[in-house]
Amino acid sequence: MSESPERDQRHLARMQRKKAVIDERIANAPNECGLLLVLSGNGKGKSSSAFGMLARAMGHGMQCGVVQFIKGRNATGEELFFRRFPEQVRYHVMGEGFTWETQDRQRDIAAAEAAWDVSRQLLRDPQIGFVVLDELNIALKHGYLDLDSVLADLQARPPMQHVIVTGRGAKDEMIELADTVTEMGMVKHAFQAGIRAQKGVEL
Amino acid sequence: MSESPERDQRHLARMQRKKAVIDERIANAPNECGLLLVLSGNGKGKSSSAFGMLARAMGHGMQCGVVQFIKGRNATGEELFFRRFPEQVRYHVMGEGFTWETQDRQRDIAAAEAAWDVSRQLLRDPQIGFVVLDELNIALKHGYLDLDSVLADLQARPPMQHVIVTGRGAKDEMIELADTVTEMGMVKHAFQAGIRAQKGVEL
Repeated sequence: MSESPERDQRHLARMQRKKAVIDERIANAPNECGLLLVLSGNGKGKSSSAFGMLARAMGHGMQCGVVQFIKGRNATGEELFFRRFPEQVRYHVMGEGFTWETQDRQRDIAAAEAAWDVSRQLLRDPQIGFVVLDELNIALKHGYLDLDSVLADLQARPPMQHVIVTGRGAKDEMIELADTVTEMGMVKHAFQAGIRAQKGVEL
Repeated sequence: MSESPERDQRHLARMQRKKAVIDERIANAPNECGLLLVLSGNGKGKSSSAFGMLARAMGHGMQCGVVQFIKGRNATGEELFFRRFPEQVRYHVMGEGFTWETQDRQRDIAAAEAAWDVSRQLLRDPQIGFVVLDELNIALKHGYLDLDSVLADLQARPPMQHVIVTGRGAKDEMIELADTVTEMGMVKHAFQAGIRAQKGVEL
């Protein structure tokens, strides 16, 4: 890029101010604690973000757990990948397919309750530092689980344990309880242009 | 949860309609091709989503490449983790720190250009099925790279290669070129409540 001493100088001044602001914010944010993160919205990236954080947690040597509340037609790339590390990740795929595949509400409820039993074990284990509850919001949205019990179990977890909850349509009470909430908005999606879900991206 | 035959019946009818719609959409989306995904916005989850998709791609056995345009103060969990797999991931951390840390525009430009040279090699290699260009949007937003050259290199990549571009403030031209774009909106963030960035979640 072309040189411009004036622009460089303005850049320096702006970045000095920005560094001061950020350093102060970091100094004022001293707490270490387990976070509850909620990833919701219609856009692509909710579950993949949870699995990226899982990789991060594994990089730091944490013991991790995953419960997938809704199973697709086939094993996903994330399942194929993270099952390679049974010593570091307890990986549970509990759902019986997307709800429009089963078309059976009582079977979906039973599957969700079984998935919550497994989740609760992870949420009671202080050895587990990081838990992904993938598509839990969908199970709650359909009324497959009792919201109050779920929130109580989340609140009773070990204080240093991080939990990531994904799925569109997060309940207001879940958002209220969470420390960090991202709403993923769809600006556009390849599906709209007639492109099928691709391995590595969606699958 | 309590039983309700009427609710179950309504559920069945709704899910039958939904399955028909989704099956038709899948049948009409037959194309396989490499996608360009852009993950932008102020919310948490952009880079972690890219790294979750990287894990997915690895689960499917793809060869992958990562270029991180902006380096934090320390090695991140994702770097620690994905460097475990040199046979499947070429991992490059090219930035010189956050731009408010360097405070030197010419040095940032030189770092961004070196990072783009490495990126271009990945974008010309048909053996690489999946490429993460982490925080590329930031380098473009600051004018550290020539936008037209970057877009031309992206368009000239192998047809089956997926590329994920992250960073807030995506350029309109990048959004235009992309197949799938997610805007991650911050609903709330633990930082606002005085909680420091946590290993496994942000780091």
